[in-house]
Amino acid sequence: MDDVTAAALSKIPIFNGLEPDVLDKIASHAHQNTYKKGKILFIHGDIAEHYYIVKSGHVKLFRETLDGTQTVIDVLSENDIFGHSLLFEDNRYPSSAEIAQTGVIISLPLSDLREEMYKNNDIAVNLLRAITLQLNHKDRELEHRFTQSATQRIGCFLLRQALKDKTGRPVITLPYDKMLLAARLGMQPETFSRALSRLKKKTGMKIEGACIHLDTLDRLSTYTCSSCSVKFPCKDLINKS
Amino acid sequence: MDDVTAAALSKIPIFNGLEPDVLDKIASHAHQNTYKKGKILFIHGDIAEHYYIVKSGHVKLFRETLDGTQTVIDVLSENDIFGHSLLFEDNRYPSSAEIAQTGVIISLPLSDLREEMYKNNDIAVNLLRAITLQLNHKDRELEHRFTQSATQRIGCFLLRQALKDKTGRPVITLPYDKMLLAARLGMQPETFSRALSRLKKKTGMKIEGACIHLDTLDRLSTYTCSSCSVKFPCKDLINKS
Repeated sequence: MDDVTAAALSKIPIFNGLEPDVLDKIASHAHQNTYKKGKILFIHGDIAEHYYIVKSGHVKLFRETLDGTQTVIDVLSENDIFGHSLLFEDNRYPSSAEIAQTGVIISLPLSDLREEMYKNNDIAVNLLRAITLQLNHKDRELEHRFTQSATQRIGCFLLRQALKDKTGRPVITLPYDKMLLAARLGMQPETFSRALSRLKKKTGMKIEGACIHLDTLDRLSTYTCSSCSVKFPCKDLINKS
Repeated sequence: MDDVTAAALSKIPIFNGLEPDVLDKIASHAHQNTYKKGKILFIHGDIAEHYYIVKSGHVKLFRETLDGTQTVIDVLSENDIFGHSLLFEDNRYPSSAEIAQTGVIISLPLSDLREEMYKNNDIAVNLLRAITLQLNHKDRELEHRFTQSATQRIGCFLLRQALKDKTGRPVITLPYDKMLLAARLGMQPETFSRALSRLKKKTGMKIEGACIHLDTLDRLSTYTCSSCSVKFPCKDLINKS
């Protein structure tokens, strides 16, 4: 278990613009650990005592239904934060968290965040901004479950990945393996395979391992975004740059 | 257009516990109108200048994809609030809003809320609580789209309605018509009809117009909640009472 510096925390959006003494205090209670793939950080229903920041690797958030089906709620990557919304009554984790790819995770006490949120309005407003953004993403995802085909949902994931990568070339790198990606998109592995084959035919893309090559993004965006209420390129990713 | 009293606003969760002078100021810029079914309050992409509270009737929030499919994001009822999450940059409405059942709507300027959020920590924390709750609901909805059948999704809606009604008897009143309910649950009307028939057979419930009669909620909850990660009764509704 290692200590965390205030400088490392200042890159995380919910700590943006905080005074150095506030950042120092938060950092003094933060710890980072390297966790191996498969490690469970917490289980759905556990009392929520910490929130977490992904420094490297990937974290899978999932739930299991009473009859044993697993749903992947999200897969988190570098600088993503989770558990920070558990600030109020009945603060039990609403999902389980598992390390999906070995990496470094920072953990911080929720009691500190709760205390600071009431004392320091900058933190309350930063949290509000972060959680509002998450809410908008969930709305878009729910819309897509209704309007997009499995093939288009994969296309949407790839287009958003291309915007995040900002390589300027239409080469898209899958951030994690296809099994996990299928689960993240709410698909059975067979559905995912069939849909990916269809997407190759529709767009002329070539897949080499984790790399996807396209001549341009035009065919992919025309095919995918016709069933979305937002025009490509998505503003939330463009504004980030 | 009528004025709104501070007392009327104080019942809305995001205004809970505010000082009387803050409530008076907010109320002084609030207006209420009676709108007829079909009236459009705003269109997806419009610049967001107001947020709204439903005093009576129902409001449908929806999006239209570029190829013309409509997705219902939510249907709001008495004391529900919407548009309050548009506090940050690029504040354009992420969906359209239409009056689904004639009623009274209170409108308030977002610029006031934004100003107060930076000045008044009570409002920032109240907003955070409200938006966190919404986020948890979306996560559960996304889970259900993956794990529950159409029949179970209707069952879940009915069980949650029974908890909200708190009549103590397993008589559930549909809050709005079946066409709108089908759209709210992301189903085609035919899928909804078939799924509802299946639910009647599975649970022995009787439907008379908008009223659903059951001997107990046990059969309905056993059938529905087996494909959910949360045990019946749902805590978020129990804690409200």
